[in-house]
Amino acid sequence: MTEKNNKKPAEAPSPGASRTMSTIENKYYSQQIHGPYEKHSIGNLKLKEGKTLRNTKIAYTTFGELNNKKDNAILFPHMYSGTSKDMEMYIGENQPLDPTKYFIILPNQIGNGLSTSPHNTKPPNGQADFPQINISDDVRAQHKLITEKFGIEKLELVLGWSMGAQQTYEWIVRYPEMVKKAAPIGGTAKNPVISKIFVDTLIDAIQSDPNYRHGYYKKPHAVQQGLKRHAKLFSMMGASSKLYSQKDWKKPGFTSLNDFLTNFWNEWFLPMDPNNLICMAKKWREADVSQNTNGDLKKALKRIKAKVYVMPFEEDMFFTLDQCEKEEKHIPNSELHPIPTTWGHFGMLGMDPNDKKYINNKIQKLLKTN
Amino acid sequence: MTEKNNKKPAEAPSPGASRTMSTIENKYYSQQIHGPYEKHSIGNLKLKEGKTLRNTKIAYTTFGELNNKKDNAILFPHMYSGTSKDMEMYIGENQPLDPTKYFIILPNQIGNGLSTSPHNTKPPNGQADFPQINISDDVRAQHKLITEKFGIEKLELVLGWSMGAQQTYEWIVRYPEMVKKAAPIGGTAKNPVISKIFVDTLIDAIQSDPNYRHGYYKKPHAVQQGLKRHAKLFSMMGASSKLYSQKDWKKPGFTSLNDFLTNFWNEWFLPMDPNNLICMAKKWREADVSQNTNGDLKKALKRIKAKVYVMPFEEDMFFTLDQCEKEEKHIPNSELHPIPTTWGHFGMLGMDPNDKKYINNKIQKLLKTN
Repeated sequence: MTEKNNKKPAEAPSPGASRTMSTIENKYYSQQIHGPYEKHSIGNLKLKEGKTLRNTKIAYTTFGELNNKKDNAILFPHMYSGTSKDMEMYIGENQPLDPTKYFIILPNQIGNGLSTSPHNTKPPNGQADFPQINISDDVRAQHKLITEKFGIEKLELVLGWSMGAQQTYEWIVRYPEMVKKAAPIGGTAKNPVISKIFVDTLIDAIQSDPNYRHGYYKKPHAVQQGLKRHAKLFSMMGASSKLYSQKDWKKPGFTSLNDFLTNFWNEWFLPMDPNNLICMAKKWREADVSQNTNGDLKKALKRIKAKVYVMPFEEDMFFTLDQCEKEEKHIPNSELHPIPTTWGHFGMLGMDPNDKKYINNKIQKLLKTN
Repeated sequence: MTEKNNKKPAEAPSPGASRTMSTIENKYYSQQIHGPYEKHSIGNLKLKEGKTLRNTKIAYTTFGELNNKKDNAILFPHMYSGTSKDMEMYIGENQPLDPTKYFIILPNQIGNGLSTSPHNTKPPNGQADFPQINISDDVRAQHKLITEKFGIEKLELVLGWSMGAQQTYEWIVRYPEMVKKAAPIGGTAKNPVISKIFVDTLIDAIQSDPNYRHGYYKKPHAVQQGLKRHAKLFSMMGASSKLYSQKDWKKPGFTSLNDFLTNFWNEWFLPMDPNNLICMAKKWREADVSQNTNGDLKKALKRIKAKVYVMPFEEDMFFTLDQCEKEEKHIPNSELHPIPTTWGHFGMLGMDPNDKKYINNKIQKLLKTN
């Protein structure tokens, strides 16, 4: 059979660019580094902002077994610039998410490089032409994954950090009957203005690199200057003043400030695809559960039926403690548990073992409540 | 007489570039906008970092009269990106600095556009070739101004905000016998690491604009993209999360977030000279009174003899409350007075009248103490 005969026009009738132009080859987005994971096809996804994402594939990983009653599932979406792999440190027999008891699903965000993303989508929808994604698009895609693929109707727990918290909030507002417990960590239901400004600076840091070429760079690591600038901004806003003044970065073994800035922050961001990061950043920027209630945030939060532990990082500079506190007051069945750490927004990485211990304890406690 | 005969070789033996190449014409740096001011020549200034700043001129403004005993002088250096003009709102008969009682001197920083600066210095020392200035160079230049020009041996008060606070600290550590009272507002004696990172992002924001041309742009407003990026960073770190979440920017009359970002932050920075800003930024970055005591900050602070009011802004994101507090503990005769404002670092502009009232009261109180 010829290639033409093999085509499935219902899925991708693209006779031109998509067959003659290629995607970006970036070895960072591989099973080797972020796997093992599988992909679930959800077909064409009509996006909140109006466009359609073709042949959407959601990468995901699972741990443990779904029980017969299908009531032991935990959904754990990930943060900006990460993948499901970065969440696995919380999973294990001695970890808060125990795979011998729970079926843990780690969905990958649209745009993170494993799911359908700018770098792995062919023209005319790839790179800078990738459509704008909304947090709710991810949550609707995850809803398809857990209902269509696994037949799950109720989740024991949804939790996540940063953009994972944004997804958690969208879940419990959009599908209030489907979630029993929730732990949004270091994130808010509506993105604070200062966080929007921060996202703007991140996007601009990348786009202002002439090698970004308006989003049509050809090599995966062409935009290093922009990514370094982006990493530097994160080293400022993603940490805290105290982390630096107390040199707490020494605890995980960094030997100098430069060592920390280079081998933590640059190491983290430099391998990534600039358009993938921008795709996620724009999603982060617009995250707002009040899109479910015509802009009424209180009304949206009051819809929540899950038992919620709101867990801000005390020194977080953009998902600030006071913003989390304000929202928590409107969530019917909730508790505020600020995480005392100098690692600011990056506290969830557990660079200081005390941070992870604190989070572990809270999640364990939440799972034990009825 | 020919031009050659008029030359004063002792001051500027520059037969080449300085006579054939020009400075940057920027109408922002004018008597019309920042005047009236005078200039005091202090000749060639040997700089802390090793180079020499030729024909250094310090612009300054004064209010009131120096009394016969010469004991009523107040020195009020200014912050980053400002000039002495921006300090004048604190001067007046109903203001904390009363010119009918005090002789108030407002020196302009080297590099701020009125004093000797990158944009008004000819090649081979202008623009990107302007030498690195240290806060102590400014303070030594100001020392020359007040002793040589006015014969002042003791200052009743030194005060300043941000880089003005850095200069204040350098004054009271370097010349402890010469200052009776001091009010460092929204600044520290040693620049905190997060503030250094912030400065790095500011410098990079400007330098990454291709029109910056490695510092050799030809037109005064060629680097608008870089300056806008620089303004955006300030809108994030120079304010506070609460200013945005509570929309406190509405109080001075801004009608929308965009109105505030454009007509406050861009309006402030866009007319300025990029190299001038970078000159000041580098000074800010390295500010550290412990350069007087071989790196021993406590020893430096303990040298202070002035009565000191340490006045951080509560929500300041880079000269943070906790950093100011830590330093204050080592200053023998000091009090900590945190300023309760959501304007963060920009609290001193008095955009909220309550902020200015708070600062006014404290300065008045400090001036009344013996």
